[in-house]
Amino acid sequence: MTAYEPLTPLTLPHRLGGLDAVASRVGGDPASWSVEEVGDGNLNLVFIVRGAAGSVIVKQALPYVRLVGDSWPLPLNRSFFEFHALSRHARHDPGRVPDIFHFDEGQALIVMRHLTPHVIFRKSVVNGKVHPKLGRDMGLFLARTLFGGSALALDGTAMRKDLALFAENTALSDITENLVFSDPYFPAKLNRHTPGLEPFIAPLRADRALRIAAQEMKHAFVSKTETLVHGDLHSGSIMVTAEDTQVIDPEFAMYGPFGFDVGMLLANILLAFFAQAGHETRDGERDAYRAWLLETFHDIWTVFAAEFRLLWRTARTGILYEASVLENAADTDGSDAACARVLAGIWRDATGFIGVEMHRRILGLAHVEDLEAISDPARRIPCEARALALGRIAAVERMSLSPSDITDLARSILQRPPA
Amino acid sequence: MTAYEPLTPLTLPHRLGGLDAVASRVGGDPASWSVEEVGDGNLNLVFIVRGAAGSVIVKQALPYVRLVGDSWPLPLNRSFFEFHALSRHARHDPGRVPDIFHFDEGQALIVMRHLTPHVIFRKSVVNGKVHPKLGRDMGLFLARTLFGGSALALDGTAMRKDLALFAENTALSDITENLVFSDPYFPAKLNRHTPGLEPFIAPLRADRALRIAAQEMKHAFVSKTETLVHGDLHSGSIMVTAEDTQVIDPEFAMYGPFGFDVGMLLANILLAFFAQAGHETRDGERDAYRAWLLETFHDIWTVFAAEFRLLWRTARTGILYEASVLENAADTDGSDAACARVLAGIWRDATGFIGVEMHRRILGLAHVEDLEAISDPARRIPCEARALALGRIAAVERMSLSPSDITDLARSILQRPPA
Repeated sequence: MTAYEPLTPLTLPHRLGGLDAVASRVGGDPASWSVEEVGDGNLNLVFIVRGAAGSVIVKQALPYVRLVGDSWPLPLNRSFFEFHALSRHARHDPGRVPDIFHFDEGQALIVMRHLTPHVIFRKSVVNGKVHPKLGRDMGLFLARTLFGGSALALDGTAMRKDLALFAENTALSDITENLVFSDPYFPAKLNRHTPGLEPFIAPLRADRALRIAAQEMKHAFVSKTETLVHGDLHSGSIMVTAEDTQVIDPEFAMYGPFGFDVGMLLANILLAFFAQAGHETRDGERDAYRAWLLETFHDIWTVFAAEFRLLWRTARTGILYEASVLENAADTDGSDAACARVLAGIWRDATGFIGVEMHRRILGLAHVEDLEAISDPARRIPCEARALALGRIAAVERMSLSPSDITDLARSILQRPPA
Repeated sequence: MTAYEPLTPLTLPHRLGGLDAVASRVGGDPASWSVEEVGDGNLNLVFIVRGAAGSVIVKQALPYVRLVGDSWPLPLNRSFFEFHALSRHARHDPGRVPDIFHFDEGQALIVMRHLTPHVIFRKSVVNGKVHPKLGRDMGLFLARTLFGGSALALDGTAMRKDLALFAENTALSDITENLVFSDPYFPAKLNRHTPGLEPFIAPLRADRALRIAAQEMKHAFVSKTETLVHGDLHSGSIMVTAEDTQVIDPEFAMYGPFGFDVGMLLANILLAFFAQAGHETRDGERDAYRAWLLETFHDIWTVFAAEFRLLWRTARTGILYEASVLENAADTDGSDAACARVLAGIWRDATGFIGVEMHRRILGLAHVEDLEAISDPARRIPCEARALALGRIAAVERMSLSPSDITDLARSILQRPPA
């Protein structure tokens, strides 16, 4: 096996030109390929390779956190977990993730479909661009992948085999454990925030109920290994066109709570909602877009819950909530009731994750372009303060808030001066 | 490596005589050793090997479930998991598990300390023998082992390494999943019950809330991988003298909820409580013993909770409930509050597990001698019916019952005709 070596636009054609999986799709003489490095994420190299016949994406892990530099080493095996997660996602919800053409474990390298003319969903959020199918596509993706990776669908042996496999993705889980659940709630070294936001941060960090809630969500993240979660399902992990939705970058995949991906994604919808004011050139300009975002929030949850119920009735082939004591005991209503209780638990967890994700994107290391693109701090601060306020309520009151409560709160908070 | 071959009293001296770990402790010529097979459990061969210098226990797994026969194959690697669990228990609570002298993975064989003059705690329960230290010893054992195996004590990498290791103990987890959580609630093939108990079983199996509760406890058992649990912590897995308590047989070890071992053990105390009437030669003869059992119930929980709080304050070296956002944020009260919330959650889970364990020991495959030793069905049935009644309340009302509620209910149910 060749030793790991990061690719560059110059070395890529020579190094990958001999691979049929690449060459047949790009076409022509590798020396003539155009290679562009486009990685704008926090962790990896991403190349678009174009040639006479077409184009592919080559994604290669770096042995450190790109956002921070080589002072923060990170194992290359995250590429292995991304490959395995993508394979499972493709099986559970065909067509919703990019096709994989080649995987090289030693080079931590995945060659996959070049999604074009797709853009990162977060760019659309900044630009106020509507994607009518996104809520439905993501609700289905969440239900199908989360149900499919759980012991609702899998027998104990199959589930525990994947549990053990993804338990080795410990370095990336560690990042989430620190950056999402702990750092935002104390003055951690890697934190950063908009100067001037301090008056809104101090009471938040002084809030005991919130700090405990955040640690309880960490407890759930670490110890509630219900299913294979994407692990990083924010607006930057979704690529869109007017017609299509694609989910990328599951390198944080691990066994975690059903509610984790759901909550992370919904939090990013709410962050987008509060960021809109910073992108308006006149008051109310983005009203329709805000309405679409909240509608999408509801679509995601409603479609998720409906599809989850459908899978419960038609694809419950695992070891949990056995038909032998429900449907086969002539108690279909009991089975429906059990499903409703499971969904209620997923929602409660999701609500808690909404809270911490909204906080960490404003107080922690990794921020979101929705807010960062607001160049004037005087305009950004109220957006962020309002998002912090909703996050706080979501985390602390997660046992009692419905989806409508959350979007009602979002609307109310937007109307009031941030506090 | 020699192929796996079950030992017999005749072959054991020859096969193990050359092992210094055995020979040095037993002493003398192996040909002169006395070997007695004493396995009265459901799964394994257990030999006492005696010689001039002393004695040891040799425990060897069989490739099938001994209770059922070779029609039910069971992997030998459970011996590997028992060895690893015993090693961790010895580290977390020194002196509370038998010393291991030798482990042979290929032969699925563990040589360990011969506990003498210890008897299985369940025998004491049948005989009405008090063990004043048992509640305290077991409360400490539960707190130390469960805390020590969790992400309260371990960092993410160490915890997930053990999570992955014990995730392979899938065959034994599968037994618990079926026999404890599902079979008792429908007419499963392996079930058996005392003839005449039917009038008490039918309403139980018709109870939708109970069936859902049992499946919710199964969901927790499978998906709440909080810590390394013993996995089979009943009165038959504890050996006692007047002065000592030893915990044996952790071959069902796996990552599961904090409340699992706690609930299983407490359920067995309650089964013992309801069985006493069947062992009385005159009414009230076992009143004092019943009182001791309920006192022990409270001791186990109280000591567990106190030790858990102590470890929370002094040994919280893991990734959960980080000091950085609690004590180090000058909020020791917040840390105590978080600990109280975690303990409340453990108690709720334990209460649910109490319910299903009480049921499966009466309705499922594996019964308990406490009740089986009552030879007259007319005397056994009311004992069992009362235990079923308490189990049902515990499982269904687990969110709202305190430890005192449970023991109060036990006393009330004992006073009333079984219903």
